[in-house]
Amino acid sequence: MSARLLDGQGLAKRMQDEIKPEVAAFAGTYGRPPGLGIVLVGADPASEVYVRNKLRAAGEVGFRADLERLPATATLADTLALVERLNGSAVHDGILVQSPLPQAMGAGAEQQVFDAIDAAKDVDGFSPVSVGRLVQNRATVAAGTPSGIIALLVNEGIPIAGRHAVVIGRSDIVGKPMALLLLHRDATVTMCHSKTSDLRGICRQADILIAAVGRPGLVTPDFVKPGATVIDVGVNKITDEGIAITLFGEGHPRLELFRRNGSVLVGDVHPRVVEVAGALTPVPGGVGPLTVTMLLMNTLRAARARVGA
Amino acid sequence: MSARLLDGQGLAKRMQDEIKPEVAAFAGTYGRPPGLGIVLVGADPASEVYVRNKLRAAGEVGFRADLERLPATATLADTLALVERLNGSAVHDGILVQSPLPQAMGAGAEQQVFDAIDAAKDVDGFSPVSVGRLVQNRATVAAGTPSGIIALLVNEGIPIAGRHAVVIGRSDIVGKPMALLLLHRDATVTMCHSKTSDLRGICRQADILIAAVGRPGLVTPDFVKPGATVIDVGVNKITDEGIAITLFGEGHPRLELFRRNGSVLVGDVHPRVVEVAGALTPVPGGVGPLTVTMLLMNTLRAARARVGA
Repeated sequence: MSARLLDGQGLAKRMQDEIKPEVAAFAGTYGRPPGLGIVLVGADPASEVYVRNKLRAAGEVGFRADLERLPATATLADTLALVERLNGSAVHDGILVQSPLPQAMGAGAEQQVFDAIDAAKDVDGFSPVSVGRLVQNRATVAAGTPSGIIALLVNEGIPIAGRHAVVIGRSDIVGKPMALLLLHRDATVTMCHSKTSDLRGICRQADILIAAVGRPGLVTPDFVKPGATVIDVGVNKITDEGIAITLFGEGHPRLELFRRNGSVLVGDVHPRVVEVAGALTPVPGGVGPLTVTMLLMNTLRAARARVGA
Repeated sequence: MSARLLDGQGLAKRMQDEIKPEVAAFAGTYGRPPGLGIVLVGADPASEVYVRNKLRAAGEVGFRADLERLPATATLADTLALVERLNGSAVHDGILVQSPLPQAMGAGAEQQVFDAIDAAKDVDGFSPVSVGRLVQNRATVAAGTPSGIIALLVNEGIPIAGRHAVVIGRSDIVGKPMALLLLHRDATVTMCHSKTSDLRGICRQADILIAAVGRPGLVTPDFVKPGATVIDVGVNKITDEGIAITLFGEGHPRLELFRRNGSVLVGDVHPRVVEVAGALTPVPGGVGPLTVTMLLMNTLRAARARVGA
């Protein structure tokens, strides 16, 4: 038995194709496209990739998308001033500050910057008001990754109501909003994390298992109930050949990829889980593209709300 | 074996005694006591009891506490105007609108009124900003019942970190904030509700089981792992003798109470759970008094924040 692979990339593409005419209609009516301002402080290589993907996707659906760069030496005050400028901008409906900010900015800087984003332009859903409205199950902008996962499950016809969903990882941007979104769709939800005893035993109960911890291959086949749906949010870059061999085994095409490139991306789910799960998201190409798509949808929604459409 | 009874009433009394000198010191320094404004619309009998308890407790610790009544025929606009007046009041640090508002006010009225409360005076923790900050584990005011339960567990030396907590009920004011507070204290947390399959099987895994659904006696002994801690948030008034007999059995002192009074209060936990659990909160006298105490503490905190202390 081999799990059905859930094609996040394909769904993301279809959703983006669907919003193109809506974006064009918005631009026709209001004389400008929806606008997204992306703040990037410093030049973290992974952040550069994420930001490039977001800019490209935004451009492809017809948004105005502006990258606002600050040097790695920028202060918190510089960053807050930039956010304030975007808050006041008539052409920007959504603002996104790429995480992480440089460590030199100090602990708490990131949340302070997120807090400064006008709630009406908070297309990442990281402001306290957005999060509070999410808990209260009121119309709101939810963080891109968990809402992308819900879209994928719904699109694939995987039932959520009455099922047991187990979420590993309790971050503010994935784990906690994921648990709440699943709860609001009537799943029974268990939240696990680094302090969980018997993680394997709890995960084995899951009809839907969501791994979002950033530990390559943590979820091994013995964590998975046969036939379960497994969603892999982790994106871990492996540069150690020994680890790559342990994860993939000799002869695996992704080990070949590693040997060609010197690195390979691996999720939190062990490659052999494909032999046990009923359905599984690949890494890359599973959840990631949907995160970007939900950001675009949140921006379109914010743009419409701003013009009262 | 018989469960240790967790004395919420006693802890509430001690905590209230502890804050009395702090309240007096505040009044001495700032020339006025902390002030709580309670809005009661209509005359629901249970609400009258709750409000009376809150007013009495507030008075006992030295607060100024004002009951602001509106008739059951009051409109949403009337209620919002009253909240606005209290928002602007110099002598009120905390505002509490007793739930439920009259049904005639329409669906959504309650949240609209909660939203109108100045976040700095939101001592129930029901505003989106308070809830969002709770999710993000940032200093905030949390709803009284779940934070009272945490205080009780900590005071009783019941370990939370690494334990499996199961919460039955997903309300905005108990279930969801309870799950988040337990998560932030490193419990593995499962959220159950009316759509949960195999509720009994999941509850039997709990080291800490919290019932907050409003169904008398739902949690029977077979739901409880021997030795588990069981927290009973339900307060259900029984007026049917058949139900009282089923719950308590002939000869039980609370059945005698029922026969004297024509009614008796019962939690969501079946009386016979005392034979299985390791520790248990009684109803009444368990969680209820702590809810009021946490409200007082939230009001004192709001008063200090307002004066910059």
